[in-house]
Amino acid sequence: MPTLTVERLTAAAFAPFGEVIAPESAKQVLGINAGTATRYHDLAHLDVESEGGRPLISWFRARPQALPLTLTQVERHPLGSQAFFPLTPHPYLVVVTHDPATVPRAFLAQPLQGVNYRRGLWHHALIALHAESNFLVIDRGGAGHNCDEVALAQAWQVTDLPA
Amino acid sequence: MPTLTVERLTAAAFAPFGEVIAPESAKQVLGINAGTATRYHDLAHLDVESEGGRPLISWFRARPQALPLTLTQVERHPLGSQAFFPLTPHPYLVVVTHDPATVPRAFLAQPLQGVNYRRGLWHHALIALHAESNFLVIDRGGAGHNCDEVALAQAWQVTDLPA
Repeated sequence: MPTLTVERLTAAAFAPFGEVIAPESAKQVLGINAGTATRYHDLAHLDVESEGGRPLISWFRARPQALPLTLTQVERHPLGSQAFFPLTPHPYLVVVTHDPATVPRAFLAQPLQGVNYRRGLWHHALIALHAESNFLVIDRGGAGHNCDEVALAQAWQVTDLPA
Repeated sequence: MPTLTVERLTAAAFAPFGEVIAPESAKQVLGINAGTATRYHDLAHLDVESEGGRPLISWFRARPQALPLTLTQVERHPLGSQAFFPLTPHPYLVVVTHDPATVPRAFLAQPLQGVNYRRGLWHHALIALHAESNFLVIDRGGAGHNCDEVALAQAWQVTDLPA
């Protein structure tokens, strides 16, 4: 079984798939509240309104998974983007691909780095690594078929994380 | 100057003003990702679409403020709800009122407790207390007049937090 190299998560590396949710992704930086706060404005493209969709806030609690990991399946949400923000101070694994027949990309996200998957992007279920982990999730609610699952053309193994 | 009593933040106490963002507010609880995660689904009413609005994710970084605090002003967003989730493990202060001429309500929110202000709710700017604090913010983007500010009918002081 081939091994997937895990990359560090940066906005540039992730740009073909969506956005990294972090202050660095702000479209504007604004002083607010009489100078007591700074607003890093508009960090990700929330694309949730097709076919009568509406934005949702939810919470994911994910059990940790140990390496080596075998990845066999991805999913996509054809009607909406999906954003995750970690609430637990542990890195987590993000796996995405434009095409389940090709080599996926795996990224190690750090605490205080969220990700927003573009609408329709194939992705593996979020992988918590070191402890039970909580995530705030912003995605699409509403009627309509919004989840496809498919097997990867071959299984991939994750054995190591970037140093 | 009169003193405002700070209450503990609970979903029930905050219900007239919006939602507490926490797993307990979920409309459904779902096992997902082949049993590796739990989804606490739909924690708050994101009301951001009026007059062509769209949902935004932003980041606030707030400087801490020391007690005693004097509160003189509130604001509201007539076109959209506004949700805050703390990313820093410190309590923070939420002050809301249906009417700037009456006694505001002050709540001490704990780490891992977010709040969603209903569209149009009068509220004080978020108050970080113990350290510089980061918040993920989900509110409305788009054209239109979406911020009113007004002086409270009288100034209020916050001197103590609940034990």
